[in-house]
Amino acid sequence: MIDKNKIPVGIVGATGSVGQKFIELLQDHPWFQITALGASERSAGKLYKHAANWFQEAPIPTRIANMVVSECKPGLPCKLVFSGLDAAVAGPIEEAFAEAGYIVISNAKNHRMLDNVPLLVPDVNPDHLTLIDDQKSKGKIVTNPNCSTTGLVVALKPLQDAFGIDKVSVVTMQALSGAGYPGVSSLDVIDNMIPYIGGEEEKMQIETLKILGQKKGNKVDFADLTLSASCNRVPVMNGHMESVSVKLKSKVKKVDVLKAWQDYTSEPQKLDLPFAPKPPIYYFDDPRFPQPRLHRDLGKGMAVSIGRLRDCTVLDYKFTVLSHNTVRGAAGGAILNAELLVKKGYYED
Amino acid sequence: MIDKNKIPVGIVGATGSVGQKFIELLQDHPWFQITALGASERSAGKLYKHAANWFQEAPIPTRIANMVVSECKPGLPCKLVFSGLDAAVAGPIEEAFAEAGYIVISNAKNHRMLDNVPLLVPDVNPDHLTLIDDQKSKGKIVTNPNCSTTGLVVALKPLQDAFGIDKVSVVTMQALSGAGYPGVSSLDVIDNMIPYIGGEEEKMQIETLKILGQKKGNKVDFADLTLSASCNRVPVMNGHMESVSVKLKSKVKKVDVLKAWQDYTSEPQKLDLPFAPKPPIYYFDDPRFPQPRLHRDLGKGMAVSIGRLRDCTVLDYKFTVLSHNTVRGAAGGAILNAELLVKKGYYED
Amino acid sequence: MIDKNKIPVGIVGATGSVGQKFIELLQDHPWFQITALGASERSAGKLYKHAANWFQEAPIPTRIANMVVSECKPGLPCKLVFSGLDAAVAGPIEEAFAEAGYIVISNAKNHRMLDNVPLLVPDVNPDHLTLIDDQKSKGKIVTNPNCSTTGLVVALKPLQDAFGIDKVSVVTMQALSGAGYPGVSSLDVIDNMIPYIGGEEEKMQIETLKILGQKKGNKVDFADLTLSASCNRVPVMNGHMESVSVKLKSKVKKVDVLKAWQDYTSEPQKLDLPFAPKPPIYYFDDPRFPQPRLHRDLGKGMAVSIGRLRDCTVLDYKFTVLSHNTVRGAAGGAILNAELLVKKGYYED
Amino acid sequence: MIDKNKIPVGIVGATGSVGQKFIELLQDHPWFQITALGASERSAGKLYKHAANWFQEAPIPTRIANMVVSECKPGLPCKLVFSGLDAAVAGPIEEAFAEAGYIVISNAKNHRMLDNVPLLVPDVNPDHLTLIDDQKSKGKIVTNPNCSTTGLVVALKPLQDAFGIDKVSVVTMQALSGAGYPGVSSLDVIDNMIPYIGGEEEKMQIETLKILGQKKGNKVDFADLTLSASCNRVPVMNGHMESVSVKLKSKVKKVDVLKAWQDYTSEPQKLDLPFAPKPPIYYFDDPRFPQPRLHRDLGKGMAVSIGRLRDCTVLDYKFTVLSHNTVRGAAGGAILNAELLVKKGYYED
Repeated sequence: MIDKNKIPVGIVGATGSVGQKFIELLQDHPWFQITALGASERSAGKLYKHAANWFQEAPIPTRIANMVVSECKPGLPCKLVFSGLDAAVAGPIEEAFAEAGYIVISNAKNHRMLDNVPLLVPDVNPDHLTLIDDQKSKGKIVTNPNCSTTGLVVALKPLQDAFGIDKVSVVTMQALSGAGYPGVSSLDVIDNMIPYIGGEEEKMQIETLKILGQKKGNKVDFADLTLSASCNRVPVMNGHMESVSVKLKSKVKKVDVLKAWQDYTSEPQKLDLPFAPKPPIYYFDDPRFPQPRLHRDLGKGMAVSIGRLRDCTVLDYKFTVLSHNTVRGAAGGAILNAELLVKKGYYED
Repeated sequence: MIDKNKIPVGIVGATGSVGQKFIELLQDHPWFQITALGASERSAGKLYKHAANWFQEAPIPTRIANMVVSECKPGLPCKLVFSGLDAAVAGPIEEAFAEAGYIVISNAKNHRMLDNVPLLVPDVNPDHLTLIDDQKSKGKIVTNPNCSTTGLVVALKPLQDAFGIDKVSVVTMQALSGAGYPGVSSLDVIDNMIPYIGGEEEKMQIETLKILGQKKGNKVDFADLTLSASCNRVPVMNGHMESVSVKLKSKVKKVDVLKAWQDYTSEPQKLDLPFAPKPPIYYFDDPRFPQPRLHRDLGKGMAVSIGRLRDCTVLDYKFTVLSHNTVRGAAGGAILNAELLVKKGYYED
Repeated sequence: MIDKNKIPVGIVGATGSVGQKFIELLQDHPWFQITALGASERSAGKLYKHAANWFQEAPIPTRIANMVVSECKPGLPCKLVFSGLDAAVAGPIEEAFAEAGYIVISNAKNHRMLDNVPLLVPDVNPDHLTLIDDQKSKGKIVTNPNCSTTGLVVALKPLQDAFGIDKVSVVTMQALSGAGYPGVSSLDVIDNMIPYIGGEEEKMQIETLKILGQKKGNKVDFADLTLSASCNRVPVMNGHMESVSVKLKSKVKKVDVLKAWQDYTSEPQKLDLPFAPKPPIYYFDDPRFPQPRLHRDLGKGMAVSIGRLRDCTVLDYKFTVLSHNTVRGAAGGAILNAELLVKKGYYED
Repeated sequence: MIDKNKIPVGIVGATGSVGQKFIELLQDHPWFQITALGASERSAGKLYKHAANWFQEAPIPTRIANMVVSECKPGLPCKLVFSGLDAAVAGPIEEAFAEAGYIVISNAKNHRMLDNVPLLVPDVNPDHLTLIDDQKSKGKIVTNPNCSTTGLVVALKPLQDAFGIDKVSVVTMQALSGAGYPGVSSLDVIDNMIPYIGGEEEKMQIETLKILGQKKGNKVDFADLTLSASCNRVPVMNGHMESVSVKLKSKVKKVDVLKAWQDYTSEPQKLDLPFAPKPPIYYFDDPRFPQPRLHRDLGKGMAVSIGRLRDCTVLDYKFTVLSHNTVRGAAGGAILNAELLVKKGYYED
């Protein structure tokens, strides 16, 4: 059942919600094949089906269900690991793997802001990947941003390239799955919403600047734009919605903004990476769209949907952005990172 | 059962969702007593309990249930009518009542922007009431703003008074009841939200300027601030949430902003109007608050709740506002308007 | 773009919620290809994308989006039509098509209980198909049952075959999509449920007896079991859940009941019909399962899920049944009917 | 602020979800006044407002907010304690209080089925109270049943008295608050429901028999009826719905059943207990009713609502029952128990 032509990969944090999503998305991946599952001591030694409280809609892939879970320590039969670890434990574990020579594709926040760690969205800043050349360890760590940042930077990048961006004001309406499982109590969000997600606004405000920054030598010059984020939790399962206003650096027409999104294509599409959405951006003319339930799965959950472009009386333009938080904004984004890294020759047998 | 000491009032549009809320809120009102119910031809002649598809949580008050519904034409046994009519029909009906000498307390948008019609929020612009002196009809029309405008202007007024306001950027997350009944299909909002409410952004952007404007002679000089609104519908029953950013006209400290809200008291409290919330504004230190289900009913649904005051990197300050859309933002707000009008001597037996 | 090797089919009631589901499910069907779309006069003449308020999660298939909608009258370029018409109009329209020589695969209730019309669930009563030999019209009408009946009869059939069934008590918890679009108002089901669905209990109680009945000559001898149904609407998008109790005609062990379901395979599987789920029934050992969101899509929405088999102190056994109401219980079930009919030679070019 | 004329009472498990409900409901109680709050070691010594994660809709009563929390040990300044303790710890704590002379009004399951402990619903089996005469401890323990049992027995009691009951089949659709806080993850019940609540069916099946049983000497002869329960969790905040079928011991007309409910009045109404709902039962003619959001608060959450009485083809009659699970089915029911006990002279200063 093991395909010798595929790259063996491990998943650490395999029983958690991001770990489960890695498993779901990597099933039938054309390049990668899961050969190791790492989780906490409590789970180690058990069959995955007994260790995980699986709550994805599709059943556990049979081969995975019957794999034995290992501890999250170097020694796994692979050279590339996806990390869906919680930030509380991700730091030292990911570092241990990197020291031991593994490529670590991490979804955790711990190493995102280090100078020599790429905070990577392949559609936006693929050139940042080479920051890892500066990592001293035998292995490497690559990270993807916070789920609410990803959709935003994909929507902003074409505008930055074409017109320059001065200011961004964004209010998010984020899905429940972003809080993990069990996450938000049903008693807190039936007929209700919560105007606060701890640490989220800070993450959006700083990560966006790094991702949209310019690589200069071994470092990223952060983008010189100002961003203000207000983050809300709404009773939606999956799909983060964002009401965005931007002030551009040049005076442009609405039609030019639309064209910037429409024409946008980037490295993952050019390299024909398996997880690259084609097109990367959908724009909707119907003012009721995009909506989470209807459009979060476009491009297999990897596309970013935009709608309602209109004048803003305070900044220049307003629009709505939607992206799938656990696919585009977490496991799927990390897989795209791994694909870019492999295509660029960083993975060696 | 009729109390001779109370002012007889009618409700036109009595079977609709705002009409039902008028009935619910006017039950046991110390000054007003419902003596007439007007609805469409189809309902006229029926007992109210047979004409209305009542869907409030409390049952129909018994006396009201057995009243016969009239058509929406002058001739009702009262001199003051509350209008919960749909905008599609409210225009000529409200005018006919005003011509016939009735005081019309309207929740409809039709006459809001006319020079001699007060767009009234008694906590904010009670002095605008005298605009009606310029109405030529025997009766008068007074209006209250759109449900998403009301909470916002109550939160902004103390800041305008104390510091001046330059710019406002607001993103709303509005409740389902704002769309009336049956309104939004359940298939559109289970595990979903809608980034669009037709006409809502335009209403917020213009109404706010009139309400916060200065009365000069017989007209209102609109406030010289810029407001940008983005309106979203979320799966919450009642209670509009708003993420607000403001740029003030003077440099102030966070503590000054808090103090402006804390110290705020206005005409309805001074006049001790029955529907005046005391205090008019609640500020929450807990960053998770306010939340719709927990705080929409504060002050019997008439208070405005604010939380999460913090720096904004694009404008000056950001905060969250909540108000009950069908009470504070519709029927309750209209009742407070009627109370002010009576207290100011505009109602004569 | 038209594939000459496929059977051309029409959809009447194509803009409604069942019509949309037919379009979604027939896309890429190996045997059928949509060549005609019929809807009301109001829609006729328009492009489908302009006539329909499409609200499925996947976008309208491009070819369908640009087809011109016809009226629901014979003359459509096909010989087989799927009817997603509302019961209010389905009667005469379906009859007109049958008179004109069309095979009508109907989801409407109008003709279900006629002696010579099969009320068909191919996994349960495929032999009833030949009832149409008795239809006098040039064309034929075949019907599928009410959405809440379908899941139940698939679960009951293996028990009836193996042990005989004496009594059934069923309480349903039905999804919102069963009421069509816009259907149930969001104000009626957020933080709420409704213990009533007009006509539903009567349909379940009689349809089940016909489907589980024995064909004797040209008629069906209704099954001699007693069924009591209580139908509730719950705030779930798709997937009808049913709490079922049965009294069997013979004394059996729990393990025998499980085996009856496990071993069950029926005509659609034997004939390898494209929409036949394999297996037709999933049984879950985990007492928390099945659940609508997790399991409604098993077998592409055509499988029936069962769980929680346990002793009943009033009848013999209790269990939980789940089936997808708009796929298995409506459009998908009708497509399976058409497949059986074609396989059995009733369709001629 | 302490009212010397009221009976001082304590609440153990005061920070939990039932404890919070006790506090909310006892505010302004005419007989009782909270003088002690007990919780876990972790909370002891803190102000209640700092110890509790309060999530009720009304704010914490000011006096309570500033009370210091004690440990759950005898020594509290009161002689009567309400127990909202979790079953995992309730056993020994409640016994310690009873040993020390306290009257314990418990909502926990631990002592419900003991011979000398009344499982009390004052509208149903007030005479069972005297079972406590047999308790050897200086103090006494009285319990109320599981939240899903309470509504059912109130609906059944008038039928048992009038006609005798032979069999009951009940399927519940239970609210989320029944699982406590945080309880059910939002990811498990948005667009979903769960057909299983651990231990619930067993509790309903046995508790009902004790409550409807006859006191004979010092014991209860369990009712000789058979009950089968199937318990489901649905996405509703508060209010348990139940689809019930009954077989009566005598042949009766529908009108007689209705009359039995209508005429029903019981001990709490006769004794004019403060928490006694008047009437105890509401019957709705509208087949869409009762519904949780609309009717759970009738009689301040203490009334039981019934609707849809109709023939059952398997047993005799079917109907729908609704009761508020955290009020009638938990804290409110316990308070009614305490009121009965005081009225009957079991409380001494």
